[in-house]
Amino acid sequence: MSEVKAVIITIGDELLSGRTVDTNAAWIAAQLNRQGIEVLRRVTVGDNAEAIRAALDEELPRASVCLLTGGLGPTADDVTKPLLCAYFGGRMVVNEDVLAHVAALFRKRNRPFLDSNRRQAEVPDVCTVLHNSLGTAPGMWFEQDGKVIVSMPGVPYEMMGLMEDEVLPRLRQRYFSDVIVQRCIITAGEGESFIAERIKDLEAALPQHIHLAYLPQPGMVHLWLTGKGQDERQLIREVELYQREIAGRIEELVIALEDITLEQLLGKAFISMGKTLGLAESCTGGMIAHKLTEVMGAAGYFQGSIVCYQEHVKERVLGVRHETIARHHVVSEAVAEEMAAGARQVLRSDYGFGITGLLSPGDDESVPVGTVYMAVTDGQRTVVRRLQLQYDRIRNKEIATRMAMVLIWKFIHGKL
Amino acid sequence: MSEVKAVIITIGDELLSGRTVDTNAAWIAAQLNRQGIEVLRRVTVGDNAEAIRAALDEELPRASVCLLTGGLGPTADDVTKPLLCAYFGGRMVVNEDVLAHVAALFRKRNRPFLDSNRRQAEVPDVCTVLHNSLGTAPGMWFEQDGKVIVSMPGVPYEMMGLMEDEVLPRLRQRYFSDVIVQRCIITAGEGESFIAERIKDLEAALPQHIHLAYLPQPGMVHLWLTGKGQDERQLIREVELYQREIAGRIEELVIALEDITLEQLLGKAFISMGKTLGLAESCTGGMIAHKLTEVMGAAGYFQGSIVCYQEHVKERVLGVRHETIARHHVVSEAVAEEMAAGARQVLRSDYGFGITGLLSPGDDESVPVGTVYMAVTDGQRTVVRRLQLQYDRIRNKEIATRMAMVLIWKFIHGKL
Repeated sequence: MSEVKAVIITIGDELLSGRTVDTNAAWIAAQLNRQGIEVLRRVTVGDNAEAIRAALDEELPRASVCLLTGGLGPTADDVTKPLLCAYFGGRMVVNEDVLAHVAALFRKRNRPFLDSNRRQAEVPDVCTVLHNSLGTAPGMWFEQDGKVIVSMPGVPYEMMGLMEDEVLPRLRQRYFSDVIVQRCIITAGEGESFIAERIKDLEAALPQHIHLAYLPQPGMVHLWLTGKGQDERQLIREVELYQREIAGRIEELVIALEDITLEQLLGKAFISMGKTLGLAESCTGGMIAHKLTEVMGAAGYFQGSIVCYQEHVKERVLGVRHETIARHHVVSEAVAEEMAAGARQVLRSDYGFGITGLLSPGDDESVPVGTVYMAVTDGQRTVVRRLQLQYDRIRNKEIATRMAMVLIWKFIHGKL
Repeated sequence: MSEVKAVIITIGDELLSGRTVDTNAAWIAAQLNRQGIEVLRRVTVGDNAEAIRAALDEELPRASVCLLTGGLGPTADDVTKPLLCAYFGGRMVVNEDVLAHVAALFRKRNRPFLDSNRRQAEVPDVCTVLHNSLGTAPGMWFEQDGKVIVSMPGVPYEMMGLMEDEVLPRLRQRYFSDVIVQRCIITAGEGESFIAERIKDLEAALPQHIHLAYLPQPGMVHLWLTGKGQDERQLIREVELYQREIAGRIEELVIALEDITLEQLLGKAFISMGKTLGLAESCTGGMIAHKLTEVMGAAGYFQGSIVCYQEHVKERVLGVRHETIARHHVVSEAVAEEMAAGARQVLRSDYGFGITGLLSPGDDESVPVGTVYMAVTDGQRTVVRRLQLQYDRIRNKEIATRMAMVLIWKFIHGKL
């Protein structure tokens, strides 16, 4: 275990009402972990001086580092700065660098610089001011009783800039901590308990300083190995040894040995091959295309998707033959194959994929609910798979989408 | 402020390492707030018995309700259940109902029922078991010193099912002898403070037992009126009177007077009109189609979407003219219009919609990042709107998707 422990306090009424998901805390935690600083706890409180004071009183004794975000904006409900000033026994002074920076930002944004904006340049005289290049509220670095307390704005990109430019380098410099090495194994096709049973002996044999965690996701399980130690190179060797050993035991389920989403994995693979992809989606209703286009740079390989929610679209746009549907049913191997071929032709892509299924009960009872056929083709060879899903509509759609991406990945890697 | 206060404790190493964003906490907080239960704090700790114990020791004195999620899976790193059992002075016993449910789930999924799975059916004998219809880990309801402590699995959809089916109804029954009546007003197009200003006098005139809450979402604000009282019929009349009065004041912003998503709203509207819809999506990459098809029965009006992530797909499949793109730019009013018309024709739908934009920085600097054009047509009349979005790619995509649905809704209701 690392000697340097951190707590994260996120401040904001909007976090307690549930209007805003606290993405800052996860991002900060990931950065600290990468530095070898262990996050012990995360606490969220409202924009309320007493609650912030109580959180500081309770959290500071636990850890050597305390990072706060939120509550630094210009509006009246921001109570964090005066509270921190009082808490650390300082008084508010105007910082000339911050004042010049804020005034410049206002000029750049063509907004009048009012007297009330001057307050944004006030900082407690007991902190080191951290330059916020992306916004008006500076970061504040306090030290007390050998502990470090840092306050940052809650706007995600401002907080991220401050962390990367100021906070992380200063923390690295100040602390010599254990190295943390994390490696993952991404699997698809079996559940957590099946995998746990398969690798039970390997898990039991892990040394004290290496920990295995399971993160189940629809249709997939991510395994994370976390090792802590002093010698980074030796630790990497050691953790990667266990990673290979476990991955080898469940080889047919492994799709990646790095922390990556399926959509990123596909993007990387297609772009590195210089090949393109086109989709024809019926039951997934555009969700595969939606996922693929969440990744920046998807335009580098993704041509598009024909979301064909009606038979006439399958026939007219994709060229699926009417008699194929009539003879085999719209949810069938044959239709999935013609959809994949149609997508490849219509979208002029190297690879084509088609998916058709019945995800929730409807009028049509000629196929069982949860039946899905998907096909992938490169123009030469076509592979079709059938899924039998068993959850509700939304969950089935998500699993079908993930399984579709796994199928495409396996196909282009010659694993089918 | 409500007399019933709650704290939320989320458990999981993956939350502290930052690998997983804690979406459960926000969802739970929003549900509790709607019931009139105020969330005081949120705390996250790792899969570690001592840390969970310390969090319970510290948080229980603050609130009457404490909700926990996570740490209930079948693998070795789950420590929550035994800890809770010891904390509340119970012993573990096999619950036959849970055992039967877990075994049935395994049969249904065609998975071997392993010994480690039997442990899933063990529960402390000092809790009320809450049935988890969507997964193997049951919820557990403890009472101590007049306080309620509920433990739920961390898998979001299982937790949501448990909250809706078991936890919220039981909390209502326990804490509110009063009848609660809630009515909502869903608005689009203006922010929270604009609406608050417009209805200031109406809000101030609300009686003590009726409360108004604002829930802003990207591009929208949901207003919730919550009334508490003894006589349900009278309370309904009273709350609906205020609902109509407030909705009347901001009529042009109101899109629904019921708790309904945009995709449900569009589905209801199209099906009741007996009309159909076809889409052409560039920058939203299929997300609008994905959202519309989350709703059961979407096949009753939704024809499909041409996800045209490349210019050649816009031209070849949708019939957007090459010279329109060359002259006006692919992100332009003219291209959005031709996409909408193309979608309507190619998908043989009554209404056509097209959207094109630049959601994140790329090579193309000829339009500002965040520029989006969207068009909707019925074949006679076409309306185009421009958006200027200012967040990151994923957030911009989500806002564009919502704004697209609002535009279509307003168009078919003659509000444009």
